[in-house]
Amino acid sequence: MPQFSIPVRVYIEDTDAGGIVFYVNYLKFMERARTELLRSLGFDKPALTNGNGLLVVAGADIQYKKSAILDDLLTVTAEFEKVARSHVVFRQLVLRGEALLCSAAVKVACVDRTELRPRALPVEVYDAINLWHNQKR
Amino acid sequence: MPQFSIPVRVYIEDTDAGGIVFYVNYLKFMERARTELLRSLGFDKPALTNGNGLLVVAGADIQYKKSAILDDLLTVTAEFEKVARSHVVFRQLVLRGEALLCSAAVKVACVDRTELRPRALPVEVYDAINLWHNQKR
Amino acid sequence: MPQFSIPVRVYIEDTDAGGIVFYVNYLKFMERARTELLRSLGFDKPALTNGNGLLVVAGADIQYKKSAILDDLLTVTAEFEKVARSHVVFRQLVLRGEALLCSAAVKVACVDRTELRPRALPVEVYDAINLWHNQKR
Amino acid sequence: MPQFSIPVRVYIEDTDAGGIVFYVNYLKFMERARTELLRSLGFDKPALTNGNGLLVVAGADIQYKKSAILDDLLTVTAEFEKVARSHVVFRQLVLRGEALLCSAAVKVACVDRTELRPRALPVEVYDAINLWHNQKR
Repeated sequence: MPQFSIPVRVYIEDTDAGGIVFYVNYLKFMERARTELLRSLGFDKPALTNGNGLLVVAGADIQYKKSAILDDLLTVTAEFEKVARSHVVFRQLVLRGEALLCSAAVKVACVDRTELRPRALPVEVYDAINLWHNQKR
Repeated sequence: MPQFSIPVRVYIEDTDAGGIVFYVNYLKFMERARTELLRSLGFDKPALTNGNGLLVVAGADIQYKKSAILDDLLTVTAEFEKVARSHVVFRQLVLRGEALLCSAAVKVACVDRTELRPRALPVEVYDAINLWHNQKR
Repeated sequence: MPQFSIPVRVYIEDTDAGGIVFYVNYLKFMERARTELLRSLGFDKPALTNGNGLLVVAGADIQYKKSAILDDLLTVTAEFEKVARSHVVFRQLVLRGEALLCSAAVKVACVDRTELRPRALPVEVYDAINLWHNQKR
Repeated sequence: MPQFSIPVRVYIEDTDAGGIVFYVNYLKFMERARTELLRSLGFDKPALTNGNGLLVVAGADIQYKKSAILDDLLTVTAEFEKVARSHVVFRQLVLRGEALLCSAAVKVACVDRTELRPRALPVEVYDAINLWHNQKR
């Protein structure tokens, strides 16, 4: 079980006409968990770094196992799987109790705000993530 | 200040290219608050009543005063303004600290699931809301 | 029947677990129609005006009559109901064939991008809307 | 260039405070293209098959290369990469002119509506997809 998680309640806005959570919305839940993980490391407004950098999702690989329904109370986890100079890979799970609903690897990269080209993560973000990552090991 | 409220954190999913919360999303925040208010009265899955009834929004009148931005922690209130046999009007506010960002009257009606025609609220829902409404006065 | 409309197909993303279009999403459909109406007057990127102005929704009053379902092909109209120095009121309908599903009055105001305070509409926008409004009469 | 595509205009609802399209929303654009591809094969309401079957996304692997911004007119493609008895893998691209913005492999599976367990695709859907797939080769 990963060290960091947030609870997410399923509201009608999250569901679709299949009677289940619209699969796209799990990615929103995961973004909330990443945001709160970064906040727990001291970084507010984590999606928009200060200065010229912008944190953007560069890739996501997600597998769906079971569906959540209206009113479910979910647990959404986030941990750092890999840390590099210009990007971070998060490993994330969505659980209902012990049941795994979906899992994903999400690659978040730092880019230049105007050109949207890769650039190094802000050093204080990089250091904090590395510290978290190494302590966990 | 109304009796019932929930906290809502603004995530990147809620914002738009204007750098503010996309105005449509305040209606989602308000729906969450109505759901939790009904839950506090004992009704789970409040958006979908048991049996043939379906609770649907029949009208909304919303005024925007100020904008929320990424990472804001908002307070979203919900109270019953009017209770009738087949519908309820909620009065709702979105606040950031003491500042009023937007307010709305939202009319929620009970309809038949197949025909989508008006029908009476489930009696236990109607009674619970009336009790809440009268106690508050 | 208003002069300007766009077709909108209902996709699974627009629906909810009630099996109908999530009521909040009609406001997105209406925004698309307003955007295309302004585009037809020659204004690209209409939601974000050039310079310091930002067009924001200041209020919306919407009534829901019938529900759309998955795969419906809707007609969404937009016309100017009122034009003032710092805001415009749009009258909008969502139709499925001849059936009216919902209608709204949406007030769009021009605000300062940094302070979010009211300011005059860009003069070329104001003039174009007035021309449209008067021709229609 | 794949055989099937739809145009998608970027509206304010699709953007986020980074000034770009919220990455999650490309998955909505791709769903629209899959829906229209299936419609072109004769299947209405494609996300909800008749009878007990439900088409659900079982996995998605998406890479983001460049960002779209407000008002962009995008081309979203869909083609069948693999067809099996109980699932289909779509290959999809989002382009702005010649520029590739993102690409994805999306696995769509057929499940039982009540139990959400894998089941065979409706035979007429399976046959139509196989025909398309083989003709393309």
